[in-house]
Amino acid sequence: MSESTNNEILIGKNAVLEALKADREINKVMFSSDARLNEINSRAKDKKIPVQKVSKSKLDQLSGNGKHQGVIAMVSPKEYIDFDQLVDKSFRESQEPILIILDELEDPHNFGAILRTAEAAGAQGVVIPKRRSVPLTQVVAKASAGALEYMPVARVSNLVNAIKELQQRGYWVVGTDASGSKTHTEVDLKGPIALVIGSEGKGMGRLVKETCDFVAKLPMRGSINSLNASVAAGVVIYEALRQRQGER
Amino acid sequence: MSESTNNEILIGKNAVLEALKADREINKVMFSSDARLNEINSRAKDKKIPVQKVSKSKLDQLSGNGKHQGVIAMVSPKEYIDFDQLVDKSFRESQEPILIILDELEDPHNFGAILRTAEAAGAQGVVIPKRRSVPLTQVVAKASAGALEYMPVARVSNLVNAIKELQQRGYWVVGTDASGSKTHTEVDLKGPIALVIGSEGKGMGRLVKETCDFVAKLPMRGSINSLNASVAAGVVIYEALRQRQGER
Repeated sequence: MSESTNNEILIGKNAVLEALKADREINKVMFSSDARLNEINSRAKDKKIPVQKVSKSKLDQLSGNGKHQGVIAMVSPKEYIDFDQLVDKSFRESQEPILIILDELEDPHNFGAILRTAEAAGAQGVVIPKRRSVPLTQVVAKASAGALEYMPVARVSNLVNAIKELQQRGYWVVGTDASGSKTHTEVDLKGPIALVIGSEGKGMGRLVKETCDFVAKLPMRGSINSLNASVAAGVVIYEALRQRQGER
Repeated sequence: MSESTNNEILIGKNAVLEALKADREINKVMFSSDARLNEINSRAKDKKIPVQKVSKSKLDQLSGNGKHQGVIAMVSPKEYIDFDQLVDKSFRESQEPILIILDELEDPHNFGAILRTAEAAGAQGVVIPKRRSVPLTQVVAKASAGALEYMPVARVSNLVNAIKELQQRGYWVVGTDASGSKTHTEVDLKGPIALVIGSEGKGMGRLVKETCDFVAKLPMRGSINSLNASVAAGVVIYEALRQRQGER
């Protein structure tokens, strides 16, 4: 799939500059190497938005031969919600809210499938780190089967700090890792729960894992000892629902 | 991703003809329109293997400019197991075997993720229909994260007949559909269980659904009223494991 179908695209100097001024969520700015775009460049760098130099023909292709004037920007299909607002909102919606924390997830299809599961299960929102996480793109939106419209996503600078804040606000933070001493069905998943899903390759980061209140493992009975990240998230989210229904 | 990375490819008349004679699992035969390949053509049609006419340049590309002589074949990365052998094997392995039936699944990533979950959870095998199902390809193998090596897959001409045979052999056949009268936690998932997962778009076929002993629904609490097929499979498979562990 080409990048042009993965992202909403802003084309040309004015469109990109106005988006930067308006603090719109931008995933990436792409320049052709001969473009003179000092203001855009410096604003993008101030906001720590990735900037990439590409050929003019690449911009022609991505913009559908639009008048790009040497610059385009890939923007998020949805604005992120402020983390503190998300926590406030979660307690207004439920006495036993569920948040999903994605620790450096890499695959947009997994991100989308987790948004879909979280929304369908009645969870309150999803939290991702600003760095080293797949951002909200059109691929994520599509894989979410519409759930992104309903599910708030917050982006935080530091996941460990976010987890500590959730703990202070009354959340139990439950990680998922093969190293857990109890299975997901043995851990109490009632009350306000934040569920941490690790990245596809490396699982949860060490500091994140150490900050969790519990680490739950999924039973593994075969030769393969891990699940797809979105499947693992679904299994634990639905176990939480089961426990809340009265442990049938 | 190009098709050349999705499938094992056999290149040239002899390779394709020998594979047909040896009854190797072939997903598709591709001809260039000027090729004279009567024997290959008729053998492929006898076996109901899809045959596609393509340009010579397409074959050049797919074969990596190999000496294709106007024909290539895409073969399965793994042989299918005979359905009756799979059922026999399942009872030798477990008193409470679990089989997963995929009713016209379309997405190779879902197929792979389900193979991974089934293997990790200790299920005995997967059953797919010969028609209108994604076949075993390299994309499926990759998405299974190695599980395809361990997990037997059977292919049957008629899913309804296969379900009836499973029922005669002592399996309870449990479908998953929003129309179910009980949730997956309310259905008894102990004993020999065959779990039916419907296609991404349409769910289970009508006849398949009517043949199931039970139809279980997953609780839906949000605006989105279905899960990704591989997530749904994971939730129900792990609920079966929980019930077998003594309903913690």
